[in-house]
Amino acid sequence: MSHRSFDVADWGIGWSGWEETRLARRESVFSLANGHLGWRGTLDEGDPCVVSGAYLNGVHEQHPMPYAEGGYGYPDAGESVINVPDGKVIRLIVGDEPFDIRTGTLESHEQFLDFRSGVLRRDVRWTSPAGLTVRLRSRRLLSLTHRSVAAVDYEIAAVSDAVEVTVVSEIVSDEPLPEVHRDERVRAALRAPLSPVAHRAADDTRATLEFRTRRSGIGVAVAMDHLVEGRAASVDTEASSEQARTTVQARLGAGESLRLVKFVGHEWSPSLSPGALRDRVEAAVGAAARLGWDGLAHEQRAYLDAFWKASDVIVDGVPWLQQAVRFALFQVMQSAARAEVRSIPGKGLSGPGYEGHTFWDAEAFVLPVLTYCLPEAARGALQWRHSTLDHARARARQLHLAGAAFPWRTISGSECSGYWPAGTAAFHVSADISAAVLRYLRATGDGEFERREGVEILVETARLWMALGRWDDDGVFHLDGVTGPDEYSALVDDNVFTNLMAQRNLRGAAASVRTHPARGQDLGVSAGECDEWDAAAAAMAVPFDAGLGIHQQYAGSTERERWDFDGTAREQYPLQDHFPYFDIYRKQVVKQADLVLALHLAHEQFSDEETARAFAYYEGLTVRDSSLSAPAQSIVAARVGHLPLAMDYLTEAATIDLDDLRNDIDDGLHIAALAGVWSALVCGFGGMRDGGDIVAFAPRLASSMKRLSFGVRHRERVLRVDARPEGTTYSLDAGPPMTLRHFGQELVVSPGDPVTRDTPPRADPGPPPSQPRWRSPREVIEADDEPAREDSPARPAVAG
Amino acid sequence: MSHRSFDVADWGIGWSGWEETRLARRESVFSLANGHLGWRGTLDEGDPCVVSGAYLNGVHEQHPMPYAEGGYGYPDAGESVINVPDGKVIRLIVGDEPFDIRTGTLESHEQFLDFRSGVLRRDVRWTSPAGLTVRLRSRRLLSLTHRSVAAVDYEIAAVSDAVEVTVVSEIVSDEPLPEVHRDERVRAALRAPLSPVAHRAADDTRATLEFRTRRSGIGVAVAMDHLVEGRAASVDTEASSEQARTTVQARLGAGESLRLVKFVGHEWSPSLSPGALRDRVEAAVGAAARLGWDGLAHEQRAYLDAFWKASDVIVDGVPWLQQAVRFALFQVMQSAARAEVRSIPGKGLSGPGYEGHTFWDAEAFVLPVLTYCLPEAARGALQWRHSTLDHARARARQLHLAGAAFPWRTISGSECSGYWPAGTAAFHVSADISAAVLRYLRATGDGEFERREGVEILVETARLWMALGRWDDDGVFHLDGVTGPDEYSALVDDNVFTNLMAQRNLRGAAASVRTHPARGQDLGVSAGECDEWDAAAAAMAVPFDAGLGIHQQYAGSTERERWDFDGTAREQYPLQDHFPYFDIYRKQVVKQADLVLALHLAHEQFSDEETARAFAYYEGLTVRDSSLSAPAQSIVAARVGHLPLAMDYLTEAATIDLDDLRNDIDDGLHIAALAGVWSALVCGFGGMRDGGDIVAFAPRLASSMKRLSFGVRHRERVLRVDARPEGTTYSLDAGPPMTLRHFGQELVVSPGDPVTRDTPPRADPGPPPSQPRWRSPREVIEADDEPAREDSPARPAVAG
Repeated sequence: MSHRSFDVADWGIGWSGWEETRLARRESVFSLANGHLGWRGTLDEGDPCVVSGAYLNGVHEQHPMPYAEGGYGYPDAGESVINVPDGKVIRLIVGDEPFDIRTGTLESHEQFLDFRSGVLRRDVRWTSPAGLTVRLRSRRLLSLTHRSVAAVDYEIAAVSDAVEVTVVSEIVSDEPLPEVHRDERVRAALRAPLSPVAHRAADDTRATLEFRTRRSGIGVAVAMDHLVEGRAASVDTEASSEQARTTVQARLGAGESLRLVKFVGHEWSPSLSPGALRDRVEAAVGAAARLGWDGLAHEQRAYLDAFWKASDVIVDGVPWLQQAVRFALFQVMQSAARAEVRSIPGKGLSGPGYEGHTFWDAEAFVLPVLTYCLPEAARGALQWRHSTLDHARARARQLHLAGAAFPWRTISGSECSGYWPAGTAAFHVSADISAAVLRYLRATGDGEFERREGVEILVETARLWMALGRWDDDGVFHLDGVTGPDEYSALVDDNVFTNLMAQRNLRGAAASVRTHPARGQDLGVSAGECDEWDAAAAAMAVPFDAGLGIHQQYAGSTERERWDFDGTAREQYPLQDHFPYFDIYRKQVVKQADLVLALHLAHEQFSDEETARAFAYYEGLTVRDSSLSAPAQSIVAARVGHLPLAMDYLTEAATIDLDDLRNDIDDGLHIAALAGVWSALVCGFGGMRDGGDIVAFAPRLASSMKRLSFGVRHRERVLRVDARPEGTTYSLDAGPPMTLRHFGQELVVSPGDPVTRDTPPRADPGPPPSQPRWRSPREVIEADDEPAREDSPARPAVAG
Repeated sequence: MSHRSFDVADWGIGWSGWEETRLARRESVFSLANGHLGWRGTLDEGDPCVVSGAYLNGVHEQHPMPYAEGGYGYPDAGESVINVPDGKVIRLIVGDEPFDIRTGTLESHEQFLDFRSGVLRRDVRWTSPAGLTVRLRSRRLLSLTHRSVAAVDYEIAAVSDAVEVTVVSEIVSDEPLPEVHRDERVRAALRAPLSPVAHRAADDTRATLEFRTRRSGIGVAVAMDHLVEGRAASVDTEASSEQARTTVQARLGAGESLRLVKFVGHEWSPSLSPGALRDRVEAAVGAAARLGWDGLAHEQRAYLDAFWKASDVIVDGVPWLQQAVRFALFQVMQSAARAEVRSIPGKGLSGPGYEGHTFWDAEAFVLPVLTYCLPEAARGALQWRHSTLDHARARARQLHLAGAAFPWRTISGSECSGYWPAGTAAFHVSADISAAVLRYLRATGDGEFERREGVEILVETARLWMALGRWDDDGVFHLDGVTGPDEYSALVDDNVFTNLMAQRNLRGAAASVRTHPARGQDLGVSAGECDEWDAAAAAMAVPFDAGLGIHQQYAGSTERERWDFDGTAREQYPLQDHFPYFDIYRKQVVKQADLVLALHLAHEQFSDEETARAFAYYEGLTVRDSSLSAPAQSIVAARVGHLPLAMDYLTEAATIDLDDLRNDIDDGLHIAALAGVWSALVCGFGGMRDGGDIVAFAPRLASSMKRLSFGVRHRERVLRVDARPEGTTYSLDAGPPMTLRHFGQELVVSPGDPVTRDTPPRADPGPPPSQPRWRSPREVIEADDEPAREDSPARPAVAG
């Protein structure tokens, strides 16, 4: 069985034809965003539509958090992303009939998201029920150089007969969110979150709407302007408190066309006055209109050229994977490029999933990619975390801890988790943030960031670990009662992932304070406190099962009863939907890579033999009920030499959204899993390891790959790693020489002086480990039983 | 500091004078109930009032259960006790002014609950703001012989001047419940749960109201009739859909009085037709009216005489304790006497606390008392559990288990817990129920009950344990991931209390099936299944810390970090209100007796030395944030010889409601803690142990006690144990001779032939163990800092 959906192309992704059943998949995959603003890939005319999203990063509404039985420290208020006024809607009336692809005759319909131009194209030929044929061409971009600006280039042409057309370009403020909450209080709070503040229309083509969210008190302004080309009979703009509308009427002769270019600006602020917001948004639209579509498109292309020049990943020999990795990188870039001091939500700005919350996977999965591909975006995301430190400090105080406890899920920085065993107890989020800080500092040497934000994050999180941990009588430091990445094993002692990440956090904090003693002093850090951090790090408990020769996921984990995998039916996955937490928690069953993620992120702590044994052991327990799992399993599978298995996991991560493997595409994209596609290729097949002073590589390609080439931004230059089965060439574009390792051997590469090294012979890894029944990656990938599109070129269900 | 509230008397409890601040305490303490019907001790005229409750056991409304993040197996629907139409209200107008004790001059106000007559008396002398003085005398009873009937004997007399009086006797249907739920959906569902069905008035004195609950669909009918004595100018009754009202007007000359006797009947059913309910309730009222007040009061007295004759506990030398234990027994009796196939809620029928739910403490704390004092009530409560088996079987299936999983909290039998770590995971509830079945069978030899209900409960719960447990490679049987009685240590492995109770359950089930092979066959039990139960029981894990020489509360418990008791302030208790579960769960801190409860209930499993060491160890960890703790600690303290400490804990249990130690008296009484007063005296000071074939005693009195005498109903006779410091006399009222043990030595007692034995010398138990700071019983008892009443006789804050 195969389940190809999209058209395969090197530098973009398209969909030819029309099937309403897969509408949500296109809406998410064709999402445009720039980190500040996001528009789902809905049709210009708005309908048909599954989820019509327009989002501004940070704009949310508060709602009550309901509990059947509350408890101390349970958050009172939740936060949900909301739809901001949506400027992407352009409705069309042909003759007297609304253009709707479900009526009349759809002669052709093509959508194509171009990764190099950053433009979503659409080309339609349609004959109305009355027999009038038109050609519709639209181009949509969210500017990467003017962060508040989106633009639509919209052209309608009469094909054979003269046609009366009316084009209605709108800003719509009342698009409903999917009602995911069962609780009526929550639904009520989110039903109409925008309260009108002001509206105005001017010059026939311009309008501005202003709103304020009812509870969270966030001001939002959206403005639009239009350029009209062609013989328009009338152009008129009106605005009401909830809607703005520019109506263009024209009579097109056969072959004649009407072009409308729409510029939409978006600003928000919790504190700016309505007047200030209006001035900003109208200025942004004015600037965009002066640049025009071509100007914006030109800047967009230039931005992306620079991005791809440094960061493109080339996979020769596997066309669908070539496309998938560029799609993944493009969407990861879009989620963060211009976020600036804002978060990277789990779904980016591509959908309302997880209520728009940001989780630990931003730092653990997305930031590794951004650090090496778009470090300025990584910096912005870390600055956002820094900006929420007061929330995290308050949370730590509430929990009777010290330092800062970052939230499990949040928009504003406040904890929004309503289930503490998988929220509050998952303290590793603070270590993941610190690890991202340390990685960013290693990769960029950004001393300014370290001084201004980095030290403080490291210090406050180090303090958290000291307050959380305890010394036993033998001088071992323990972290009891926490939840690691694996949400099927909650409230455990000495989770190895958490402990090793905390260890790195403590050491990094001590080192950073010693580098910036004045900052340490500002933060009240004594020399003794740094020594305590080092001592705790050195004494950190790391449970190991000597009998099996493997690390335990947590103290005693390997002694627990194993889940009855053979007695679990295919349709009983995900387990959390079919079994009580009670039973899941007490048995050996792993939702997502946990110890295996430690094998990757803290690789220096594990010998090759320990890595191989542990990987094999946890493969038998891991059910991948989280999208975060496959990338880590791919990386470690590649590391231990199981390249076909690594390819299977990579395929799962790469197709999770394209093939909607989890049946949740209406929520938006899995940004962290998409980031994991890059990591699986670069850290898995490329063998990149970045924990120490020197970046190391050990590229080994899958049998289907002829070449794997990727760029690594490192201290303001780009290292390109160009791997072929027989050997790898390292080249540097600028700056001082760079020392790195190739299969453990140091080499130095200088600009203009590429270095090529052979791939050493590989040891036989033995037979690959097996997974729980129904949960091998091949079974998961093949589980999608929707019919394949007839006309789609070959992307194998499972990569060979 | 002392905090006596009520007047001390041997056979009742009273309150002289008036302080509005302690109103809720009187409302709960003066509650009347018969197990079917409950009326809080509110004033006849309805105001002032804190919580005006009238309850019918089982009548509840359903409401949604809200979750911020739901999960598999979370209950959808909750259940809450509601106020049924309240027939205790009799309003009075004197001249043109409503009688209200807060206006005019209250010259005297006495309330007295008489344990022998089962009547709540009230005597008031009041002068209206206009200067008219009246005497009000009311008597209220809830019949123990006519379960649906309540009656009020109400008399108003003019003292010196002639007075115009209007007496308005009502059934009120719209008394609000306290709004304890934060969630608006839940509040809405409970705001007006009764939907009117029918109403009628007849004969000037009679009225009937009928309702149906909106969601749970329960029909409720309440009827009243009146006898009027005295020179009434008019008597008139009217009924509307929400209210019934009998109005009596009279002009009383000086010294003249008007008497109104009100009879109120109550019936409910989920299935009966309105007509059938009406007929039943009107028939009950008619029968009551024919008996008249004196007839009802006579039967009430006879019922109570029989109860006290068998079950009175005499404590000479400690008057307040004499009163407290009779109060406790009286309220325990009231909660269950005529419940018949209905549950015993945590608050009995004395208040809306815990939403009227029934918990494990019904079986673990209340049924031991009822089994030996009112076995027919114990049988009814167990029959109720049996009647909910289908719910429990469905719950077990939902959890992928076998047999029956009884709910943590419920009214109907469906699980209503919204927090699974302290609900679903607390599987011990099913063992507690089985233990109560086995105890009832041992004490009564009720083969009919065993055959009809007992075997099935035992079999289905045994099946639960087999499905829950696992065999390890060494042939040990484990119960992983459960929560024991201590709610501060959730999701632990091999909780000793749970395991020992499950062991007893398994053995009891096997034995019962072998006694009733036909029933076993009906239930599909094979001989092999019984053998498996015995094998699992024999192999049950019982974690023991060999270094400390004590049993662990659960596997590894003694190795966990200790709570920082010295760093915890007095006002940070209860801990769950001031610290996150995360931190509480991972440390050694005990909310309520858990291993110590096992020392009591499974005493045969522990040597004296193990008992003493374990008691001392867990004393240092137990904070008693549950009212269920003090009784168990009292019992075991007495057993290991710490009699003053046992007395302190007994004092805490006995004053929990009388002195409102937990500041929650508006919720109603702590029925299980009150039952614990009996257990502390009988099982603690009396040393009664009932696990085996022969009941054993070992009475040792506190220094302040001159005599402790109690009755034990055993197989249709009463054993009276009459203990003095120097020795104990055992006597039997009827039936065949009874073999028992006195300090380990068997003796036989026959009717008419009492046996007296000396108290053997006691070994020095050493210094008493200490409790966490602020949590010694003395500190808890003294923590109530409300001012003492000036006029109250001496009940010491802490018993000497």
